[in-house]
Amino acid sequence: MDRPPAAKEILLIALGGNALIRKGEAGTIEEQFANLRLPVRQIAELLDDYRVIITYGNGPQVGNLLLQQDCCDAVPKLPLEILVAQTQGQIGYMIESTLDSELMLRGRRRDIVSLLSYVVVDRDDPAFARPGKPIGPAYSGEKAATLPFPTIATPKGHRRVVASPRPQTIVEKREIRKLIDQDFVVICCGGGGIPVTREGRTFHGIDAVVDKDLASARLGEEIGVDLFLIATDVDGAYLNFGRDDAELLRTLSVAEAREYLRAGHFGEGSMGPKIEAATEFAGRGGRKTIITSIAAISRAVKGEAGTVVSSEPL
Amino acid sequence: MDRPPAAKEILLIALGGNALIRKGEAGTIEEQFANLRLPVRQIAELLDDYRVIITYGNGPQVGNLLLQQDCCDAVPKLPLEILVAQTQGQIGYMIESTLDSELMLRGRRRDIVSLLSYVVVDRDDPAFARPGKPIGPAYSGEKAATLPFPTIATPKGHRRVVASPRPQTIVEKREIRKLIDQDFVVICCGGGGIPVTREGRTFHGIDAVVDKDLASARLGEEIGVDLFLIATDVDGAYLNFGRDDAELLRTLSVAEAREYLRAGHFGEGSMGPKIEAATEFAGRGGRKTIITSIAAISRAVKGEAGTVVSSEPL
Repeated sequence: MDRPPAAKEILLIALGGNALIRKGEAGTIEEQFANLRLPVRQIAELLDDYRVIITYGNGPQVGNLLLQQDCCDAVPKLPLEILVAQTQGQIGYMIESTLDSELMLRGRRRDIVSLLSYVVVDRDDPAFARPGKPIGPAYSGEKAATLPFPTIATPKGHRRVVASPRPQTIVEKREIRKLIDQDFVVICCGGGGIPVTREGRTFHGIDAVVDKDLASARLGEEIGVDLFLIATDVDGAYLNFGRDDAELLRTLSVAEAREYLRAGHFGEGSMGPKIEAATEFAGRGGRKTIITSIAAISRAVKGEAGTVVSSEPL
Repeated sequence: MDRPPAAKEILLIALGGNALIRKGEAGTIEEQFANLRLPVRQIAELLDDYRVIITYGNGPQVGNLLLQQDCCDAVPKLPLEILVAQTQGQIGYMIESTLDSELMLRGRRRDIVSLLSYVVVDRDDPAFARPGKPIGPAYSGEKAATLPFPTIATPKGHRRVVASPRPQTIVEKREIRKLIDQDFVVICCGGGGIPVTREGRTFHGIDAVVDKDLASARLGEEIGVDLFLIATDVDGAYLNFGRDDAELLRTLSVAEAREYLRAGHFGEGSMGPKIEAATEFAGRGGRKTIITSIAAISRAVKGEAGTVVSSEPL
């Protein structure tokens, strides 16, 4: 039996890209729908005990749209912000309909809303002075020199780089809070949100990508989430990751997490931003962040898997 | 001053494709945002007196995505249902952020949710036996013969055809009703909704396009909309449209509308489906449908423009 909404904690689950496309897969739509069932089945079980918000990454999907745009000169090019919006349409629908089907199989029905979300970033964010986030396809050096946007050399070739500014606020936070108060399942903040700047009294889209875990942490803080769960492709945070003496961290205080982060234990493009998101969430009133694998969401919520970053005494 | 939600009628506004891309335009993103301001300004004014739902078409946008897919073999092809979802992401975001900006300019703030919507169609709908809706780019006859989907010859060339089945139900109707009861502005049912069939206890996407005015009429009926406004590229419904003796119809009873429809006064791909949507809406309890131009939304709501199809005695 469902408990009344007010008696249920709010759980925010941030799904990594591997919830849809796993390593080595081409990423057909059939694969993406099939992969989604693993996290969604576990989420369906959690709805009795938690009010749930689901956020998600969009890296491969936005990469595909960028590649398609490059191929086709017959159609006006769309800015990155619009492509992020398109991926929110795609993935938001996929998560919602998979969850809907999963609940029907169990003879249950829940209010579910998959909503478009945009996130305000600061035009003066230092990230804009040194864009560092590679996106989209790899180009030859020759081709890269002719492109209308900055690129950087990567092991795969030259790739477009954009800024990854800090999320200031999620524009729909008030709406999301009202929905979650009524125990709607809310699916939002896809790909870290559609990045916009606020200029005077209007919003303007901007070429940037907001880290989805940082955006989720910000949302968690803004609406008062109790538990923040980051589901990714590894079991949790490791000390000495990839070495023989690698050690899975099961619990971390915020102070420890910050210390290990500073000491460089966590990969810059991988575990680092997740630990950072966890410390941000904790630093602003969040109680607990769990970092775990897609397969272990249920077990991690029960305390049986993953890395816990806790703002409470351990 | 806003009236309390319960005292406000529910107004559903279905925006035609010309709200974003006008005849003769290339359809750049700047043009699309600029065009949107005309309907959105008028909608912002209506929020004091009505609870508002906005639906919208997606023809050119989904056509562009189909064309891009055709150009690019490096990325797995996505089925039509996913492309419709992508356009809901794009256009839903554009309408929401334009309305948000418009309200900020007026020093107002409203709860706005732009949500992904899917619509159930019947796998046995007769439309699937004779697909008749052309979508996407035009191909040469030679190329058309090699394509993995059915095409029909059109004046522009061979185009893909898909079925346009009747909308059975909008999956998110319960959520939309709850939101509108709380006076949220709800943006939904883009492109007539993402078409799915219900098979046993799960949903499956299907290659089809649901007419956005029929889907809007269905939603209007399911959630108890009072006023249904269809905003398009003409002033209203005409008798003898395109001829010297063309006559704008200002008011029509449902019986008259059905009679003129049967007599072939309204174009099959243009005004016909709008009149049909109006009669469906009226036939199932809806009070009044107004068909008008994008520029005349405000005036039409005041009774100063457009064609009214009314289920009440005139």
